[in-house]
Amino acid sequence: MATLPKVVGRVRDLRSAVAGFRAEGSKVALVPTMGALHVGHMALAERARELAGRTVVSIFVNPAQFAPHEDFDKYPRALEADLNKLAEVGVDLVYAPTATEMYPAGFATRITVGGPSEGLETDFRPHFFGGVATVVGKLFTQCAPDYAMFGEKDYQQLKVVTRLSKDLDLGVEVVPVPTIREEDGLALSSRNAYLDEEQRKVAPVIYAALTRAAEQIRAGTEPQAAVDTASGMISALGLKVDYVAARHAETLAPLKDAKEPIRLLAAAWLGQTRLIDNIPV
Amino acid sequence: MATLPKVVGRVRDLRSAVAGFRAEGSKVALVPTMGALHVGHMALAERARELAGRTVVSIFVNPAQFAPHEDFDKYPRALEADLNKLAEVGVDLVYAPTATEMYPAGFATRITVGGPSEGLETDFRPHFFGGVATVVGKLFTQCAPDYAMFGEKDYQQLKVVTRLSKDLDLGVEVVPVPTIREEDGLALSSRNAYLDEEQRKVAPVIYAALTRAAEQIRAGTEPQAAVDTASGMISALGLKVDYVAARHAETLAPLKDAKEPIRLLAAAWLGQTRLIDNIPV
Repeated sequence: MATLPKVVGRVRDLRSAVAGFRAEGSKVALVPTMGALHVGHMALAERARELAGRTVVSIFVNPAQFAPHEDFDKYPRALEADLNKLAEVGVDLVYAPTATEMYPAGFATRITVGGPSEGLETDFRPHFFGGVATVVGKLFTQCAPDYAMFGEKDYQQLKVVTRLSKDLDLGVEVVPVPTIREEDGLALSSRNAYLDEEQRKVAPVIYAALTRAAEQIRAGTEPQAAVDTASGMISALGLKVDYVAARHAETLAPLKDAKEPIRLLAAAWLGQTRLIDNIPV
Repeated sequence: MATLPKVVGRVRDLRSAVAGFRAEGSKVALVPTMGALHVGHMALAERARELAGRTVVSIFVNPAQFAPHEDFDKYPRALEADLNKLAEVGVDLVYAPTATEMYPAGFATRITVGGPSEGLETDFRPHFFGGVATVVGKLFTQCAPDYAMFGEKDYQQLKVVTRLSKDLDLGVEVVPVPTIREEDGLALSSRNAYLDEEQRKVAPVIYAALTRAAEQIRAGTEPQAAVDTASGMISALGLKVDYVAARHAETLAPLKDAKEPIRLLAAAWLGQTRLIDNIPV
C-alpha cells in the first residue's frame, strides 16, 4: 500500500512545503478540489504529475460558492478515502484548510470576473463564480504553483479561472484536462453520488443530446436549432433543463458567425440533483 | 547629480529586476504612486529604503479609480521631474506601465473589499476602492514585494489595502507612513497643484478643524458633536463638505463606545478641487 500524502491545514505550512519543493528545483502543480475524489480528479492529479515534479492537491468545500439553498451541507466529504486514492497516484502534499483558515474573522475581499462568467451558470447560480474566483485566487497566492489543473467538465469555470490568473498576473498556467466519462457517456461528478438507480440510467441523456447536436451542427444545422432539439430530448426524459447553449469555445460569448469555434454546454436537474456537461463541436 | 533610476514598463522586466534583487539577498519595498511626486511621496520612498535593501516605485495613473466625470485627464503628470526626485532618494527601479500593460484587451477581473471601504469616500466616490483594490492587487502580484508603503493621508485607502493584502494572502506587509504637511498644516497632495493663491490660503482649515475636534474629544466632547462643529468651521470658509466623521481607527466602523481608538476623517471641495485629510484623536 502506498504511503499517504502529507496533509497540511495552514497556509504557512503549505508555503513552507512548497518552498522545499522549489529548493529542490521542482516545478509545482496544484489540483484544486472539493474532495469526494473520483476517477476524474485522479486524471487531474496524473496530468499534474506529468507536468511538474511535485503535485499538491487542495481539498476545500468552499462555502462561498454555494448559495444558502444549495447542497453545501450534504456535499459529499470523505477525507480518508480521498487520501488513499491520492496515495495511489503519488501526490506529494494535500492542503486541507478549515473555513476559518481560508476566511478569517474580518475577511472582506471578493474577486469577480466578468467576460466568460456572463450567462450560462451565472444565470442560475449568480453567486457561483464570485465564490470560485475568490477561493481560486487565494489558493493561487497561497500555493504559488507553476500549473493548476482544471477539468473541462466545468468548462465555464475553466475559462473564468484562466481569465482570473491572467488578469491578476498570478503567474499560474491553468491547464485544462479532458472530462472523464462512464462507459455510457455520463461525465464523472461528485454529485453523481446523489443519483438513485433509476436516475443513474437516465443521466447519460445530457451527453447523448449534446453529442447529437454537435453532429447536426457539423452536418450544417443551425447551432440554435440543434441545441433546441437537444434541450427537448433532455426534457423528454423528465429532466428540468436550465440551459443548453452553443457558445464561442474560448470567450463563451454568444455566437456571431459560422466560423467561430463552438462549445456546447448544458445544465439540467434530475430530481434534486443538478448535472452539467459540455463538449466541443 | 544622482543617477536616474532604471525605468521599466513591462511586467516581465519588473519581475526580472525584482528576481535580481532577491538573488542578491535583498528585501524589496514597493511604493505605489500615481506620479506628480511631492515631499509626501519622498517620505514613503525614504521609509522604504530604511526597511528594505531595494526600493521600487510604481508610477501609474490608474483610470479604474477615476469616474468619468473626475480629473483623470487633468491629473498632473511629470515623469521627468519625478525621476529626478526619485534619483535624489536613491530609488532602485521605477515601474511605469501603460494602461494596456495593466489592463490588456479582454481584461475582466475586479477585486472589491468590503469592511473598511464602507462609507466615507465610498459614499462620494463609489467606484474608487474597487479601482484601487484591483490595481494594488495587481501591483502586489506583479512585483511581489516584502513591503508596500502607503501614506496615512489616504487613511481609508491604507486600511482597504491592508485588508486586501491579508485577505488574498498576498504576503505583502502594508506599512503606514505619517502624513507630511506644509507649515500651515495643509496635507501634501498632488491635487494641491490645482489650488489658486486664494484657495491655498483657505485650504488648511480642514486640518485646523480636525485638530480642534480632536482636542474637544480628548476634553470630553461627544465625537459626533465635535465633528459637527468641525464641519461647520470648514463650511464657514466656503468649502463644500462631503463628510467630517469620527470612526474606529482600525476598522473604520462607526463608533460604538467611548473606549475605541478614534480617527477623524474629512473630505471637502474647495472650488473644483477635492481635498481629504485625517488625524488620530
